[in-house]
Amino acid sequence: MSLWGGRFCEPSDEDLRRLNDSIDFDHILYAEDIEGSMVYARALAQAGVLSAEEAEAIIEGLGQVTREFACDRFELAAGDEDIHTAVERRLIEIVGDVGGKLHTGRSRNDQVATDFRLWTMRAADRLHGELRQLQAAIISAAESHNETVMPGYTHMQPAQAITAAHWLMSFFWMLERDQERLRTAKESMAACPLGSGALAGTPFAINREQIAADLGFDKPSENSLDAVSDRDFVADMLYAIAICATHLSRLAADVLIYSSAAFGFIALDDRYSTGSSLMPQKRNADPMELMRGKTGRLIGNLTGFLTTLKGLPSGYNKDLQEDKEALFDSLETMHQLLPVVTATVGSLQIKAEAMAAALTEDLLATDLADYLVGKGVPFRQSHHIVGQVVRLAAERGVSLSQLPLSALRELSEHFGEDIEQVFDYARSVARRNSYGGTAPEAVRAQIAQAKARINQ
Amino acid sequence: MSLWGGRFCEPSDEDLRRLNDSIDFDHILYAEDIEGSMVYARALAQAGVLSAEEAEAIIEGLGQVTREFACDRFELAAGDEDIHTAVERRLIEIVGDVGGKLHTGRSRNDQVATDFRLWTMRAADRLHGELRQLQAAIISAAESHNETVMPGYTHMQPAQAITAAHWLMSFFWMLERDQERLRTAKESMAACPLGSGALAGTPFAINREQIAADLGFDKPSENSLDAVSDRDFVADMLYAIAICATHLSRLAADVLIYSSAAFGFIALDDRYSTGSSLMPQKRNADPMELMRGKTGRLIGNLTGFLTTLKGLPSGYNKDLQEDKEALFDSLETMHQLLPVVTATVGSLQIKAEAMAAALTEDLLATDLADYLVGKGVPFRQSHHIVGQVVRLAAERGVSLSQLPLSALRELSEHFGEDIEQVFDYARSVARRNSYGGTAPEAVRAQIAQAKARINQ
Amino acid sequence: MSLWGGRFCEPSDEDLRRLNDSIDFDHILYAEDIEGSMVYARALAQAGVLSAEEAEAIIEGLGQVTREFACDRFELAAGDEDIHTAVERRLIEIVGDVGGKLHTGRSRNDQVATDFRLWTMRAADRLHGELRQLQAAIISAAESHNETVMPGYTHMQPAQAITAAHWLMSFFWMLERDQERLRTAKESMAACPLGSGALAGTPFAINREQIAADLGFDKPSENSLDAVSDRDFVADMLYAIAICATHLSRLAADVLIYSSAAFGFIALDDRYSTGSSLMPQKRNADPMELMRGKTGRLIGNLTGFLTTLKGLPSGYNKDLQEDKEALFDSLETMHQLLPVVTATVGSLQIKAEAMAAALTEDLLATDLADYLVGKGVPFRQSHHIVGQVVRLAAERGVSLSQLPLSALRELSEHFGEDIEQVFDYARSVARRNSYGGTAPEAVRAQIAQAKARINQ
Amino acid sequence: MSLWGGRFCEPSDEDLRRLNDSIDFDHILYAEDIEGSMVYARALAQAGVLSAEEAEAIIEGLGQVTREFACDRFELAAGDEDIHTAVERRLIEIVGDVGGKLHTGRSRNDQVATDFRLWTMRAADRLHGELRQLQAAIISAAESHNETVMPGYTHMQPAQAITAAHWLMSFFWMLERDQERLRTAKESMAACPLGSGALAGTPFAINREQIAADLGFDKPSENSLDAVSDRDFVADMLYAIAICATHLSRLAADVLIYSSAAFGFIALDDRYSTGSSLMPQKRNADPMELMRGKTGRLIGNLTGFLTTLKGLPSGYNKDLQEDKEALFDSLETMHQLLPVVTATVGSLQIKAEAMAAALTEDLLATDLADYLVGKGVPFRQSHHIVGQVVRLAAERGVSLSQLPLSALRELSEHFGEDIEQVFDYARSVARRNSYGGTAPEAVRAQIAQAKARINQ
Repeated sequence: MSLWGGRFCEPSDEDLRRLNDSIDFDHILYAEDIEGSMVYARALAQAGVLSAEEAEAIIEGLGQVTREFACDRFELAAGDEDIHTAVERRLIEIVGDVGGKLHTGRSRNDQVATDFRLWTMRAADRLHGELRQLQAAIISAAESHNETVMPGYTHMQPAQAITAAHWLMSFFWMLERDQERLRTAKESMAACPLGSGALAGTPFAINREQIAADLGFDKPSENSLDAVSDRDFVADMLYAIAICATHLSRLAADVLIYSSAAFGFIALDDRYSTGSSLMPQKRNADPMELMRGKTGRLIGNLTGFLTTLKGLPSGYNKDLQEDKEALFDSLETMHQLLPVVTATVGSLQIKAEAMAAALTEDLLATDLADYLVGKGVPFRQSHHIVGQVVRLAAERGVSLSQLPLSALRELSEHFGEDIEQVFDYARSVARRNSYGGTAPEAVRAQIAQAKARINQ
Repeated sequence: MSLWGGRFCEPSDEDLRRLNDSIDFDHILYAEDIEGSMVYARALAQAGVLSAEEAEAIIEGLGQVTREFACDRFELAAGDEDIHTAVERRLIEIVGDVGGKLHTGRSRNDQVATDFRLWTMRAADRLHGELRQLQAAIISAAESHNETVMPGYTHMQPAQAITAAHWLMSFFWMLERDQERLRTAKESMAACPLGSGALAGTPFAINREQIAADLGFDKPSENSLDAVSDRDFVADMLYAIAICATHLSRLAADVLIYSSAAFGFIALDDRYSTGSSLMPQKRNADPMELMRGKTGRLIGNLTGFLTTLKGLPSGYNKDLQEDKEALFDSLETMHQLLPVVTATVGSLQIKAEAMAAALTEDLLATDLADYLVGKGVPFRQSHHIVGQVVRLAAERGVSLSQLPLSALRELSEHFGEDIEQVFDYARSVARRNSYGGTAPEAVRAQIAQAKARINQ
Repeated sequence: MSLWGGRFCEPSDEDLRRLNDSIDFDHILYAEDIEGSMVYARALAQAGVLSAEEAEAIIEGLGQVTREFACDRFELAAGDEDIHTAVERRLIEIVGDVGGKLHTGRSRNDQVATDFRLWTMRAADRLHGELRQLQAAIISAAESHNETVMPGYTHMQPAQAITAAHWLMSFFWMLERDQERLRTAKESMAACPLGSGALAGTPFAINREQIAADLGFDKPSENSLDAVSDRDFVADMLYAIAICATHLSRLAADVLIYSSAAFGFIALDDRYSTGSSLMPQKRNADPMELMRGKTGRLIGNLTGFLTTLKGLPSGYNKDLQEDKEALFDSLETMHQLLPVVTATVGSLQIKAEAMAAALTEDLLATDLADYLVGKGVPFRQSHHIVGQVVRLAAERGVSLSQLPLSALRELSEHFGEDIEQVFDYARSVARRNSYGGTAPEAVRAQIAQAKARINQ
Repeated sequence: MSLWGGRFCEPSDEDLRRLNDSIDFDHILYAEDIEGSMVYARALAQAGVLSAEEAEAIIEGLGQVTREFACDRFELAAGDEDIHTAVERRLIEIVGDVGGKLHTGRSRNDQVATDFRLWTMRAADRLHGELRQLQAAIISAAESHNETVMPGYTHMQPAQAITAAHWLMSFFWMLERDQERLRTAKESMAACPLGSGALAGTPFAINREQIAADLGFDKPSENSLDAVSDRDFVADMLYAIAICATHLSRLAADVLIYSSAAFGFIALDDRYSTGSSLMPQKRNADPMELMRGKTGRLIGNLTGFLTTLKGLPSGYNKDLQEDKEALFDSLETMHQLLPVVTATVGSLQIKAEAMAAALTEDLLATDLADYLVGKGVPFRQSHHIVGQVVRLAAERGVSLSQLPLSALRELSEHFGEDIEQVFDYARSVARRNSYGGTAPEAVRAQIAQAKARINQ
């Protein structure tokens, strides 16, 4: 029998019950539900609602329920529509009627909001750790390739020479911003709803500050009506995950392009590739494709939940039950993806020779313009002159350095013998030595800064 | 061992395997997978690739696999990464090496696309049937309330009198459009990819028209490269479901408002209401809240999948594996919701008296303007005059009919004694007798038309 | 003064007026608004609501309003909150009080729904034409490259040889499905709401079938309450556009990859490339990047509008005003993109030599497996053997054809001298000659079929 | 002529130019573009790239350009494809060739990223201010209604009595969380990309820390490749706006329901209502409907932009040009909505009598259960007993307080004469006096806390 049946004459329809019940997915909140109840029992005792003995009995009973879950011995009963009902039902079986006092002044509305926030705070910590591992793998790969020069692309066209380390580290900083978002999402979930009752607050003199502190929250929520229907923290997590996924989908896009046969800059380890049922030669970078593909799903989960929230009357509405499956799915998807992405990055084979072979003098066009700037030509003019140089080389079917000085001097008298120094990729990279630039020295500083972050 | 391992030295990473495998969710395609293979075996025999005996052996073997699934006796083996691998592995166990001939000229790319289309065609039929039941429930409710007058709302403000039947039937037509979308989605999935191979087509002389016909498709797909990565039909289904859900979310919004204490136009049957753990008097219309809330999720599934498709290089990419869970979830959500929504509508108690009590003369303001129009006053003027009448009544704190004729005549000389007839809700409703209007006669015709549709 | 001010004492707030007014964007509906009014005037005359002279005067007046718009001489007045108000205000200025009779029995609710549907039907036709042009450009490009062999990719890895024509034509069929969606969207908008009034239908004996026919609709809408808030056709168009954009984003992805320096399969015409302010050598395929990038916006417009519809009470709500800007933006985006995409495709330089140079014998692995199948080896075994062949070649650092026959025969005794024929890309392509395959003969048939479609 | 034309033989296609140009919408960045250039000129001078005189001339020239924009005298020229090109073109016209030195070491990639961040930081400040005004209006309304008792709802069903102040304040806290999100979004945009060049960093010895500080950023960006394509701050803003809109859509939902005729708890001021063209009596709460409806669009803008980011290769891609219109639209929508929502809330008429009339004894059921708890009955039992009481009252058609004590005592012997005190709404509200509860005293404390926040 469900806990709210007193007033009803007819039992719920079976289809509705199936639709309505959340035990299938919310049972994973059991530890947080019990923890919340233990703290609440203590608060009721302090408020004089329970005697010390009653509180003790309840807390002991809850301890037993925890052990039953932990040992996988907890048995669901027919009316256990959600984890909260299941735990309370079992508690009363264990400790008797006194168990029925636990819910005094509490509602499922504030209870579920508290449990779910607690659970999500822990999930955020786990995600933080998984991202840290990926960040560490990126740093490690970058350190091995700080002198490896490759073409840098914009618009998927070769633009300027960069180092492989610089390319890899660009993803570190994206993830570092994601960590920041995770941190602020965690702050937004650290307000404790317990004591808000169904919507109007509690008439019992429980100490909400104490409850919040005991459960690891920063503070109690400020308005009981808001508290029972505030799911901002779910949206914040879904958003943090969605944008983190877009970053990883960009990493995936790069890895997929760079590991294509035409590029060949990268090879994936056998363990992180898969084959084809028809074409035995295929080595597909499935982890990267799945990362990219699942980004859609993670964006969809965010969109869907925001849509659920839109236009909802205030106070708790059953629509909010949609908070859990969306977040569970986004988190589970990340928990599955991140270790594989981390291992893929960690075992990435960077083909320095293929990268070197792909360097073309076009990548030095900016350096050539800078050369003219050094001779006093305003950048805008030097840019135009180099444009003509590039065109001339294309017309003659030669590379830039193959153009005779005389031809160059027809385009600008500022070209001189010292132009040769420009045609050196390592020098081009080393010149970009300002803060955040691709020069090995600057990237070493960048990596040092990154290590300091993850060792904080 | 997976079927594509020949070329690889190292086994796949376990995390990747878990991420990559789809058997957890794609096993429900088993019947379609086997059916496709049976037809394919026959096509290979006709093409001379298999001998008649070989084809026979394979088909018999597949028959046994089907029975194992049907009796829940099929046992997964370690390397069964997806349903296609599992079925083929088992087939070879049963029939020996000849089973290894089945995949000749076929790729998982065209195989999975074929299976999934077949499965979705059947799912579309099931959804069609469920919607038909809901449409029938609406018609049935409407027939009982064709003379029940209620306020009709725009902007959530009382606007004009309508009948409850007219209100109910408005949802019938929304669903009828959804049925149409379902029908065209089904057409879009009725092109058979089998015979497209991995991407380039098949070199074996199989008869693709025959295969398509045997499997119940309208035609073979026109371009093999397109065929293996075309998931339009999934998007079409997700869209048809999403917009259908928005319709039902509007029904839900109405039912929730009309069943609020302040309105009281509707009561939900006990079987389709739930209670509260803290407030024993509550009767919550959970089915309607869940319908409204889950609409977000269904829109999110569509958004997510379109996002997955965006920017994908052509040919099969693993990203497309995201097609299944999104569609399975949207369909399962509908399969859970629709019977409950249908039963809720079917057992809705329409409170004709409460509706009647909510009728106020403001609802007749348009009729009053029409009255003046009948006297030759241009509508735009009569509209303005009635605006002044309404304001006057508000100022005096009376209803429109309580204003003395003299007061009305100060606003327009066209008001006469015959104005009394205007203040009759049943007449107001009966006047709107044109095609598609709210008059009982027009709604009877509307219902007849609706019945003809569902009995087609 | 606005047309609904009669009852109000205080003028609207200016901020609200700005927020509320739609004339800034809905003025483009002027022709449809006037057309609808002309047909409506005639219907009112037939119903005896207007005299023949009155109807004539109104229609003539509306003719003058049309000319003022057409010559850009129409002047907005202060209270013209939307196009409907503006037109009626001007009509009354021109024809006097009789103009005030036009709105008899009509509401802005059915009027705006009618206008917008009419406008959208025409916009759908324009989009259809633009897509046809792109389809024609694809066919034309394909015809020039029916013998050009290139690597076909799955998972962005070389898989099997295909022709450039086959690759190009794959997009034709995606667009053909989009045309189909456009056609069904147009059907869904072809129900005429005029005569539905505000929500309850009209009390005047107008002939709705006639109105629908005169305006080019298929039928009048079936339920007046549904009709005034049915915006399914907007969602249908937004969806048709969104999925069409995902197809074009896939084309863009391919073109961007194939025109990268590493691939070099394709060059864009100068007219459809842009340069860089810093790097003079860059030739960026901006049209393709914008196509891919704007796909996000087009998916966002769909998502946003479905979200707006979610949970809306029935009847007209002002929320529905969001229908126009979303659709205008999606259509305008397509009108801008399509001619550029068409011209880019039309001027694409296919580099057959670069494509040929990228062919590697890996692409023939399936053919090698088929060779063994021809010798009677079951496909699953031959697949495994060829996997070992590929691995052996990789270990020795040679191509497949460079492996001595003796080495091959150690892996399978079925390899013989006739294996040489396998190493021929043109033959590989020509073998895939079944319906929808990549063989030149099959693609010629495919193109013929495509031409028949667009010449229907 | 565009600034990148040196290398190209053929002019851009006109259609492409229209599609590509962003001057139509990015001209609003002019002040930030010029400001960034002034600081950059100074940095170039400090780095020795410009002489002091050259820098001075450029800065003076930029000052003149600013004045031309400010006085609306700036004239666009044919090739001004974006604001950056336009400003530089004009600068060179004013100061001559030296103007061409300004772009030394700079790329449009780092320039546009810097400008847009600067602009968005200011837009965030404006939004912050607008939200503060709305928060102040909420506080002010709440203060006037701290003793006004109304039914509190969950599931749209009356649940417990609350005060109107408590209801209003619930929205304050939602907005306060939005302010927090705005603050962290601002932090995320406070990293200055200038000096990142096109992707690889700058070879000139400019002081990036100094530039960042001069422009009001917190720090320079850490990785140049990341910096030029990092649009996280746009997504962060779009998200902050989207979730803020969902909060306001919930306020809108409540106001629309409470101002419906059936509820009548609230009336909107005439200035913030609109009428109907057909029904003169209508007073529609358009601002609230537009707030609710536009929430879809704002969610769509977020979804669309995340979708644009998905799968993008790293480095700048033209797809990123989609960042601006999405953010401009979301911000402009909020700038239009917020003043109207604020004024609507500020002028809301709370109908205390209608609220009082809607109080029914069902709202006291929890208090009744608490009464039994006070007598020592475990809550779970008392909840069940009260359920039976509610059912009994419903069966007899009386209110709870009309049940004779004897009837109550049949259900529980713990009912006594002192039960009368329970039937007092003010007492019910006053009992919920814990932190965050609805008691007037607790709400006074809540308001004081809220005031402290907005006066920080």
